[in-house]
Amino acid sequence: MIIKPGDLLASINSPADLRKLKPEQLLQVSQELRQYIIDVVSIHGGHFGASLGVVELTTALHYVFQTPYDQLVWDVGHQAYGHKILTGRRDNFHTNRKYGGISGFPKRKESEYDTFGVGHSSTSISAALGMAVASQYKQEEDRHHIAVIGDGAMTGGMAFEALNHGGATNANLLVVLNDNCMSIDPNVGALKEYLTDITTSRTYNKLRDELWNVLGKISKFGPNAQHIASKIESGIKATLSKQSNLFEGLNFRYFGPIDGHDINHLVSVMEDLKRIPGPKILHVLTTKGKGFALAEKDQTKWHAPGLFDKITGEIYKTHHDTPQPPKYQDVFGHTIVELAEKNEKIMGVTPAMPSGCSLNIMMKAMPDRAFDVGIAEQHAVTFSAGLATQGMVPFCNIYSTFMQRGYDQVVHDVCLQNLHVVFCLDRAGFAGADGPTHHGAYDIAYMRCIPNMVVAAPMNEQELRNMMYTASQDGAGPFTIRYPRGEGVMPEWRTPLELQQIGKGRTIQEGEGVAILTFGHIGNYAVDVCQKLSYDGINPGHYDMRYCKPLDEELLHHVFQKYNKVITVEDGCLQGGFGSAVLEFMVDKGYTSQVKRLGMPDQVFEHGSQLELHRDAGFDPTAIEKTVREMVGVAVKV
Amino acid sequence: MIIKPGDLLASINSPADLRKLKPEQLLQVSQELRQYIIDVVSIHGGHFGASLGVVELTTALHYVFQTPYDQLVWDVGHQAYGHKILTGRRDNFHTNRKYGGISGFPKRKESEYDTFGVGHSSTSISAALGMAVASQYKQEEDRHHIAVIGDGAMTGGMAFEALNHGGATNANLLVVLNDNCMSIDPNVGALKEYLTDITTSRTYNKLRDELWNVLGKISKFGPNAQHIASKIESGIKATLSKQSNLFEGLNFRYFGPIDGHDINHLVSVMEDLKRIPGPKILHVLTTKGKGFALAEKDQTKWHAPGLFDKITGEIYKTHHDTPQPPKYQDVFGHTIVELAEKNEKIMGVTPAMPSGCSLNIMMKAMPDRAFDVGIAEQHAVTFSAGLATQGMVPFCNIYSTFMQRGYDQVVHDVCLQNLHVVFCLDRAGFAGADGPTHHGAYDIAYMRCIPNMVVAAPMNEQELRNMMYTASQDGAGPFTIRYPRGEGVMPEWRTPLELQQIGKGRTIQEGEGVAILTFGHIGNYAVDVCQKLSYDGINPGHYDMRYCKPLDEELLHHVFQKYNKVITVEDGCLQGGFGSAVLEFMVDKGYTSQVKRLGMPDQVFEHGSQLELHRDAGFDPTAIEKTVREMVGVAVKV
Repeated sequence: MIIKPGDLLASINSPADLRKLKPEQLLQVSQELRQYIIDVVSIHGGHFGASLGVVELTTALHYVFQTPYDQLVWDVGHQAYGHKILTGRRDNFHTNRKYGGISGFPKRKESEYDTFGVGHSSTSISAALGMAVASQYKQEEDRHHIAVIGDGAMTGGMAFEALNHGGATNANLLVVLNDNCMSIDPNVGALKEYLTDITTSRTYNKLRDELWNVLGKISKFGPNAQHIASKIESGIKATLSKQSNLFEGLNFRYFGPIDGHDINHLVSVMEDLKRIPGPKILHVLTTKGKGFALAEKDQTKWHAPGLFDKITGEIYKTHHDTPQPPKYQDVFGHTIVELAEKNEKIMGVTPAMPSGCSLNIMMKAMPDRAFDVGIAEQHAVTFSAGLATQGMVPFCNIYSTFMQRGYDQVVHDVCLQNLHVVFCLDRAGFAGADGPTHHGAYDIAYMRCIPNMVVAAPMNEQELRNMMYTASQDGAGPFTIRYPRGEGVMPEWRTPLELQQIGKGRTIQEGEGVAILTFGHIGNYAVDVCQKLSYDGINPGHYDMRYCKPLDEELLHHVFQKYNKVITVEDGCLQGGFGSAVLEFMVDKGYTSQVKRLGMPDQVFEHGSQLELHRDAGFDPTAIEKTVREMVGVAVKV
Repeated sequence: MIIKPGDLLASINSPADLRKLKPEQLLQVSQELRQYIIDVVSIHGGHFGASLGVVELTTALHYVFQTPYDQLVWDVGHQAYGHKILTGRRDNFHTNRKYGGISGFPKRKESEYDTFGVGHSSTSISAALGMAVASQYKQEEDRHHIAVIGDGAMTGGMAFEALNHGGATNANLLVVLNDNCMSIDPNVGALKEYLTDITTSRTYNKLRDELWNVLGKISKFGPNAQHIASKIESGIKATLSKQSNLFEGLNFRYFGPIDGHDINHLVSVMEDLKRIPGPKILHVLTTKGKGFALAEKDQTKWHAPGLFDKITGEIYKTHHDTPQPPKYQDVFGHTIVELAEKNEKIMGVTPAMPSGCSLNIMMKAMPDRAFDVGIAEQHAVTFSAGLATQGMVPFCNIYSTFMQRGYDQVVHDVCLQNLHVVFCLDRAGFAGADGPTHHGAYDIAYMRCIPNMVVAAPMNEQELRNMMYTASQDGAGPFTIRYPRGEGVMPEWRTPLELQQIGKGRTIQEGEGVAILTFGHIGNYAVDVCQKLSYDGINPGHYDMRYCKPLDEELLHHVFQKYNKVITVEDGCLQGGFGSAVLEFMVDKGYTSQVKRLGMPDQVFEHGSQLELHRDAGFDPTAIEKTVREMVGVAVKV
């Protein structure tokens, strides 16, 4: 089904076309742009609310600035659909986030208008400042550098680091603060309150009104008093504009707040700002989901709603006659509440992902024991460490890929002190449509090298529950549990809690000739493969290792004594990963089995479905089967 | 030589003893404390200026607060010597930073007064907030939680993340901002200017003086005008105290700035603050090196001066008759200037380590091309990535252990985009006296798992120069060069620059029976060992691999074809490290040699000299020799 853009939008193949239009046509452009996003996303899926919220802003930026010469960096980037459509990707926008299609985020390889690849939050000011400083060095004095950053992303520490550096330069940098009070979930923290404060300008307005009123009265005392009043007025203005503002405090000139849906006002303000050199910030107020009533109303639900009826707003769901397995994230969300009800030490922490990791279930049930700390992975980890010093058992839930942001804190604040913090790494392994910035590829390698850390991965819902239960026991120490995005395999997942022995795997089946060692959910592929192979009389052993660290040495001795051919399978990078840990054991112990490691080879994988990516990386069921057959010397049947 | 503390200090075995003293005795306590630090550090070494600067602050904190029940978290912690001396470690303070002695940083294992282990910067507010939230949950309403953080550490993003979270709680948290305008080097950035601004109160004072003056004149117009004037005054006061301050903007009540060397005023202000609930910040002005004139004057030099004459201020240096090898950091510092003189694309970036990594040489020579961005590792990496998008070749110098702080940015902003940023990781491997928080143990493992990344380590100064030269060439892509703290091996180190082939090692010597594969500076141990063994007719092969990624596969094929016994040696963690990469190659290619990997086993290593730590970890020359002898079946001579 071909989706037709509106007439004006159809004529815009690049921002140069946009800039040929008259200002009075921009309202129509933005209306058509909004409609096109609704039309395409309702049928093809993707992020929704964020891009709707910046339609006018996007149009104004490309209208006023000479992109791509002027450099526009979108923070996070899931709001950049309008940007993509206006910069030559209108007609393949329907391929967004699909295997082989365009990326859901700005990407340098995709377009010269995508100045910087994004996906994780809070990077835009640093990147744009780097560009601006390079431009200064190259004496490109007319070149503008713009970072568009949400108020949620602004809570990420590196954004502050960049402001601190940027404010001490005279780089030609414009930060557009897209203030919509939301991350995926509603924003939290003092900055949010502060922004609301300056937006409603309570204190300032109150003072100003009172003073102006009073100064008016003073003026009536005569010319001398008028002179005094005017002196007071200018003094107050100077003070308020210089020091009353957090951003001015960091030496960014502050402008706003202005209505981010008034396209003509946006254009006029930006035109003015072009003439102001140095670091500056434009505070723009927008509404996430703008123009689609339901999305404005429930912004978390409509952040990325899946497919929906654009007229009725009905979000399509697949109906099943039988109970389906739950998402791993929901197993986490319900299980932590179940555990916390019995163990008063347990607390929950997440950096701005309560709906994404389902900690929102605990936040609702036990608001004094579950915390969304904002987009602040570093703080989330060390805050958890602080809780742990007081005998609490914090479960800190961070997506695998975002855990990279708190890596030093895991090493320095948790593991070196051997503090009892449980890290639940959601979205570990290939993340799917979000692509390379979101794949949880490296956590096994970067976690297992840290002393004191346990690294576990459940093969199913029951194992996740039992690992969480095991990790919550006194003395468990630093503990990582990684599990993938999406559903498990057990429709009846509310199994009784049982303690595991840390570092013990389990035998799925004994076999002959070749052993398959799996780590985590990916083991279910091996179960299917083993069943299929059994029809051909091929019976590999299959072991669910459960723990990559500590390894089950007893089980591994058994494996290497029994099998001289071993396959390892993991949904993670091969360099230094689970398979590598198995090799270390094997060689340290003097075994010389033939080992084939399946996992992510050393390359960047783009977006696609998880199964497509498992296939491309060579560890989908077909690849596992092929590897077993090759190793046992029985070719795949054609 | 026994160093005697002053009489009062000699009587203080814990803060309880301190609290028995009268306020008027505190001045003497702090004088004795300062003198004791000078006496001990001048003879035994250690950090110097930072602890001198907080003598009064330390005394006041332990006097006013009921430590250890009230919880005191020192940020970074190299300023905590006074704290250690007052909390039961006076008499073994001379063992500070020595093998088996007390740590140079607060450490939970060492004392109940050390509430949180530190070493890296900017963690204290997060940790103290975690403690405070736990106290709230446990209804310990009388318990105070104090984070003492420098203005340098305050530029680290996670401190801001913690303020953002803390300001939205009503946790009983006091942040003491120890403002001395210094990190190890002078602080940089907008925050520093801001703090100076509120300290000197230029704007505020100017406005206030002018207004009060004017209001005085208004009052003369009669009672009505007096009323008006008083209304203006209170309105301005309210505004200025609420909004004129960055910290108030984040919902921390702000107090100060006050003189951090006036012990009695400190005590009285802190007594008042004890009665104010919720998050609050006390801005204290101190002078790094206070009380030792030379240290006040050159604060960078006296951050950790080594041994010195406390009377004359002469810093002792070992005199040598022959030229000595330079520090690796200086080879970096001079070589980047040499390269940048010929290649205008090269830039230098460091987060607050210009003197520690010797980028200060370039900052002086080429101020428009070398940047200290503040304590901001995350920003340093992404800022470098931004520079790289514009065709620059940034060399981003970060200690190995601090690189953990920018890990996500290395993955997400540099490697996924394959941008040409050169990371120079100083202090890679055991850092020595700074201990576990500073050991650069994990970088090989956490860097080599990232696609597109090159991981190199020089065995000597010439290799470092050539690696830097090689890394600066167009198309080199993301590139890591790790090198240790301390000196190299080449007194004549200014060798001509030669390009290396990326991923090619070199043969030090062909041998028989066993091959030693080394990565980096540690290879020099193997050279010595090989020479010694040759007297016994044992001739192992020795290969300086230079690159852990990509591996020199040609050389490795040669090694595994020629030798069935292989030893790998690295100054880094064994899990997932260099040796593990060699195992991956070996098994992938079907070799079955016996391999013994030497490096850091999976445990936390404390402080000591580098050689002591190499010995403890089992890769000093003795251990290498022993391993070779065991593998070739010739016992070590007794």
